[in-house]
Amino acid sequence: MNISNFGRKIAVQSGIGQLMDDLGAALAQKGDVLMLGGGNPAHVPEVERYFRRSMEAILADSDRFERTVGDYDPPGGNVEFRRVLAHLLREQFGWDISLANIALTSGSQSAFFILFNLFGGRYEDGTVKKILLPLTPEYVGYSDVGLTPDLFTAIRPKIEHLDQHLFKYHIDFDNLRIGDDIGAICISRPTNPSGNVLTDSELERLSDITRARNVPLIVDNAYGTPFPHIIYTDADPIWDQNTIVCMSLSKLGLPATRTGIVIAREEVVEMVARVNAVLSLAPVRIGAALATDLVRSGEIVRLSRDLIAPFYHAKAQHALELVTKHFDGLDYRVHRPEGAFFLWLWLPNLPIASLELYERLKARRVIVVSGHYFFPGLTDPWPHKHECLRLSYAQNEATVAAGIQTIAEEVRRAHAAPS
Amino acid sequence: MNISNFGRKIAVQSGIGQLMDDLGAALAQKGDVLMLGGGNPAHVPEVERYFRRSMEAILADSDRFERTVGDYDPPGGNVEFRRVLAHLLREQFGWDISLANIALTSGSQSAFFILFNLFGGRYEDGTVKKILLPLTPEYVGYSDVGLTPDLFTAIRPKIEHLDQHLFKYHIDFDNLRIGDDIGAICISRPTNPSGNVLTDSELERLSDITRARNVPLIVDNAYGTPFPHIIYTDADPIWDQNTIVCMSLSKLGLPATRTGIVIAREEVVEMVARVNAVLSLAPVRIGAALATDLVRSGEIVRLSRDLIAPFYHAKAQHALELVTKHFDGLDYRVHRPEGAFFLWLWLPNLPIASLELYERLKARRVIVVSGHYFFPGLTDPWPHKHECLRLSYAQNEATVAAGIQTIAEEVRRAHAAPS
Repeated sequence: MNISNFGRKIAVQSGIGQLMDDLGAALAQKGDVLMLGGGNPAHVPEVERYFRRSMEAILADSDRFERTVGDYDPPGGNVEFRRVLAHLLREQFGWDISLANIALTSGSQSAFFILFNLFGGRYEDGTVKKILLPLTPEYVGYSDVGLTPDLFTAIRPKIEHLDQHLFKYHIDFDNLRIGDDIGAICISRPTNPSGNVLTDSELERLSDITRARNVPLIVDNAYGTPFPHIIYTDADPIWDQNTIVCMSLSKLGLPATRTGIVIAREEVVEMVARVNAVLSLAPVRIGAALATDLVRSGEIVRLSRDLIAPFYHAKAQHALELVTKHFDGLDYRVHRPEGAFFLWLWLPNLPIASLELYERLKARRVIVVSGHYFFPGLTDPWPHKHECLRLSYAQNEATVAAGIQTIAEEVRRAHAAPS
Repeated sequence: MNISNFGRKIAVQSGIGQLMDDLGAALAQKGDVLMLGGGNPAHVPEVERYFRRSMEAILADSDRFERTVGDYDPPGGNVEFRRVLAHLLREQFGWDISLANIALTSGSQSAFFILFNLFGGRYEDGTVKKILLPLTPEYVGYSDVGLTPDLFTAIRPKIEHLDQHLFKYHIDFDNLRIGDDIGAICISRPTNPSGNVLTDSELERLSDITRARNVPLIVDNAYGTPFPHIIYTDADPIWDQNTIVCMSLSKLGLPATRTGIVIAREEVVEMVARVNAVLSLAPVRIGAALATDLVRSGEIVRLSRDLIAPFYHAKAQHALELVTKHFDGLDYRVHRPEGAFFLWLWLPNLPIASLELYERLKARRVIVVSGHYFFPGLTDPWPHKHECLRLSYAQNEATVAAGIQTIAEEVRRAHAAPS
């Protein structure tokens, strides 16, 4: 079938498309598959109860349900939700914003599609600008959103060894140069896939540099603070006129409602709303509706800190213990889990590439994601890119335990018989 | 702020963006505004009851609510919904399809963004293909979705005068030429804005021509049959391997759930799913969940035919009577309302452009849409383009009645004092 370049790039050759097909095909055989691959959040019963109660309240409140499903929101998203969210962020965190600084999108992914193509790509004067990812590994979902080729550029991280098996990535500020070919900078905090949380001082330094260069700093806060706050270190929510913070209701437990949140200076928010109109008329309303009361009361911050963060932190600790146990004697490292819900496993000197390890694991019905997907824009030949796996620890303990055991077995086998 | 060409085209210069801003600003002063401008469907109480019961059933069915909001669907959309919909269309209407022929999107608008840019735009061999709209006026929402400039081309319709005041557009087949520069053809049926319903024989002829030329025929069935079936004439639901039927749950009463449905040959559906993954990971799940039981039982077809069609048909008749009454003595024509929920008012020899009339009406707090927006791709200077208004009759009777009365007054005034 004859299709356009857009189709070839986005619909056919997209890595994330192939990855999601693969995950989907694996899931279709469900039952005896150990799914450590996807980004689906856990079902946290205490949190789910809030959303169930919220839907019951919507149904009980005269025609609120009918309005929630039956009336389009404006292209920028539900006004009441944006109003209470602006209030929360202003009062609790001192952000100097109003509802005009907030637009909703069809999930974070849609926000990145919009923002990266707004600031990256071809400009009227003929120049082509890139999105700089100052810290790789970085989120696989960015890889394919570029409407122009080679939208990303990235630099290698510095690696801090915390002990024999724990490490942490840092931005290599010495090699961070923001030329005229950079349209925006983006980091995820916590980082998907590594679980790294940029320190406040790293973020401030990045913020200073980008502000000085007049280049927007996009912070992918999908797992971040103040909600869902899947963060196990100290980290403050920061925002200023040069920063575009992208949040989401997904990891709070509402992924299927596709609710992304962009917080930025007003002209950026207006542009996001305009693109929403062209892409899908308006964002979906139900996610905002389910969360409005939680945001109005501030409860969303408390439940993130008191329920969600400890829930995933315990899972992270447990997953780390399992790795320590099963990988004993193997050459391995793990990024210190500081947030999100992934273990980033580094297998130095692995005799096979991570993609081959992924295939072998899939044959044993353990689904992970090969680390090589998570280096968008990093063109260096760097062996590290093929030595890592991302494992979700969001699923139940038995799945995670059996998965990690099988991974260790396959790594051991690969070292024993490389070919 | 410095932004890319994509940003300039989609976020800044977009006509639909400006239109929606304008509608939004008008709505923000709600209360005493007569809104005949938007595309929001009516609240049909008998239909709303189905969706309320559906949500209650989801809440009552163990953890179905939690899965509905808490688990990502695959990029092609909810599998169970696609399965029961394929079954319905196969069994009741003889379409030779399975769930692999169906993908969901974030509303119809998103489907058109994807499809028009898949088939239109720049191809690998350097050619640039257009989307041909064989019958204008055509839906304003298409206008801005092109990632490349001048994505559309269109031809003037033939006009059949049914009586002194009623007319109907027809495709001018004599002037319909499908050159190598055409990537796909698209028609909305019923047509938004005119309420025209292409006859079965017109549609078959179009289908034959496109099949012979190996160019996909995209049918925008957002108001069409078998659901929501806002159609007052005889019209069959048709599909074949060369046809891409785009449906929606919006006009059924679920616009805020953003649920579009693309029914096409498998390779097209796979591409739509891939683009979904890049644009927003996966479609929202709640719309599909609310409608699944209605589709499984076939009730969706009955309620569309027995509740929704008569509801809007009565409103159409009433609106037509109001026009007949208030426009008495004026030079006016109305497209025969055959479906959708708009009156398309043609004011031949209007001394002012429709956009100016729109402005004067807005000053009197009556919001309509100027007809000139609805000719994407038609570059001819044709006075007709500036002589029409689109009025929604979906709102309550008092609003529609007062709105039409004010429009007639302003038209009369314009004729009396043109400048």
